[in-house]
Amino acid sequence: MNLFLTVLDYAGTFVFAISGATVGVRHRLDLFGVLVLSFAAAVSGGIIRDVLIGATPPSALVGWHYVGITCLAGLLTFFRCEDIERLRNPVQLFDAVGLALFAVTGASKALAFGLGPVSATLLGMLSGIGGGIVRDILVAQTPVVLRSELYAVAALAGASVIVIGKQFSLPELPVLVVSTSLCFGLRFMAIRYGWRLPIAAGRDDQ
Amino acid sequence: MNLFLTVLDYAGTFVFAISGATVGVRHRLDLFGVLVLSFAAAVSGGIIRDVLIGATPPSALVGWHYVGITCLAGLLTFFRCEDIERLRNPVQLFDAVGLALFAVTGASKALAFGLGPVSATLLGMLSGIGGGIVRDILVAQTPVVLRSELYAVAALAGASVIVIGKQFSLPELPVLVVSTSLCFGLRFMAIRYGWRLPIAAGRDDQ
Amino acid sequence: MNLFLTVLDYAGTFVFAISGATVGVRHRLDLFGVLVLSFAAAVSGGIIRDVLIGATPPSALVGWHYVGITCLAGLLTFFRCEDIERLRNPVQLFDAVGLALFAVTGASKALAFGLGPVSATLLGMLSGIGGGIVRDILVAQTPVVLRSELYAVAALAGASVIVIGKQFSLPELPVLVVSTSLCFGLRFMAIRYGWRLPIAAGRDDQ
Repeated sequence: MNLFLTVLDYAGTFVFAISGATVGVRHRLDLFGVLVLSFAAAVSGGIIRDVLIGATPPSALVGWHYVGITCLAGLLTFFRCEDIERLRNPVQLFDAVGLALFAVTGASKALAFGLGPVSATLLGMLSGIGGGIVRDILVAQTPVVLRSELYAVAALAGASVIVIGKQFSLPELPVLVVSTSLCFGLRFMAIRYGWRLPIAAGRDDQ
Repeated sequence: MNLFLTVLDYAGTFVFAISGATVGVRHRLDLFGVLVLSFAAAVSGGIIRDVLIGATPPSALVGWHYVGITCLAGLLTFFRCEDIERLRNPVQLFDAVGLALFAVTGASKALAFGLGPVSATLLGMLSGIGGGIVRDILVAQTPVVLRSELYAVAALAGASVIVIGKQFSLPELPVLVVSTSLCFGLRFMAIRYGWRLPIAAGRDDQ
Repeated sequence: MNLFLTVLDYAGTFVFAISGATVGVRHRLDLFGVLVLSFAAAVSGGIIRDVLIGATPPSALVGWHYVGITCLAGLLTFFRCEDIERLRNPVQLFDAVGLALFAVTGASKALAFGLGPVSATLLGMLSGIGGGIVRDILVAQTPVVLRSELYAVAALAGASVIVIGKQFSLPELPVLVVSTSLCFGLRFMAIRYGWRLPIAAGRDDQ
């Protein structure tokens, strides 16, 4: 189980790093700036989670695994950016995968550290959206999490399923599959069909 | 006394959440984005303070109180934003109340954790201004704390009174009243009469 | 040796505070905003490092030394900004000195707390660039670290020399001199001659 969580975590790191690198290339950062943005997008959510639960130094800074994975993703994106751009909306797609993987592993880690259900759900959501928030702030944009279709809601849904599964002691693998699929599915459908939450009514006429 | 501090803390959370939600509605975020901004504006200052004094997990993430309070404030602002907008400069007013309450409770908590007077004053100020900084950064604006009339100065003044009161073992309730009033009063008068600190002289002709 | 590190740390704090204050004056912040930006630019890197290695409360918040040094630098810049502006590119120059000093002391502190070579190198780099990142985010700009000539690379190089020196138990003073000179030299030459890393090829025609 731990091995499976680790593999999921590395996969999420890789896809979030590609999402960060793609934003970096689009903003015409240089090679190292792209690598920094890969790293920041991939590990910020987990670092924020680890700092908040008191698990210092954060796992993303221990050893060379995360640095290696994000550098690989960053270099791949940097030198093959046209291939990656050619995919439809690659930033959003990779972002949705990373969001689902990180929300789920984040909530699991918070539960493993003994936090209660509300905290674990929030920390799962934060693990998922933290990297995207830091990535967008670093290029001076309002984070996509605050603007786009069902972004944080999807992370919250995925994290909730993990926490509910733990509360009722449901078998772990199905819970992982359902939570990840729910989060990715919600976000993907929202991108595909433009599902969005309402905006405050009284301001529409501005 | 602890009960009183808790009530003050909840009240500050509520008004800061309204301030965050109002900014979110003004920037036309969707419902969940408004709730995220409510939460971020209300608890970021306290979370930063707790992380810096090593009190993890931060109290704002434990239990459902803060989530519930900020969601309530966010929903109220979202569905009644015209009523709230009709008040004169509501963001600034709620912001001033939250600033005073958070600077005071933040300095008190830092003292309770055994920090020295300089640290406690700084952490009180940071508790007060942290939420507003995070709120403004999330919508890609220079934080109001760096631009506006006596903002951080007011938080610093409120936190200083708490620390001085503790140093001289003055009775707690009057110290609380004086510090909160001083911070709110300074900020309110600064908004009302445009009190501001000087800007560097040599740059005026630009 | 510890005394020497402390002196270096105070010197780095002073020059980073001047860098922060200069940005604040340029953005026409008021006196207190300039002081806040001095403090944020000077201590954010160290505070982030201390939080990540679990050394709370961060040393920059304990005692009055850092507050005093950054206030002095901020006041000097505020009232003498024309003199400071008259120096050629003062922000960049002070920034390069602070970058070198902080990357080196940051990596040393991380090693002293028992972190491994990869983590210590990353934390050294982060100590160097963290203040500049926070400074630029606070005035709503993309951080210079992501755009400019060999910025984070220089910090990484300086931190690497410290870590390599420790691994091979080389004498401390020469290692300190070499690492600081390498970081400052790289950054200075990059500013002087416009050395930069490549930008992703396929995007040049946009």
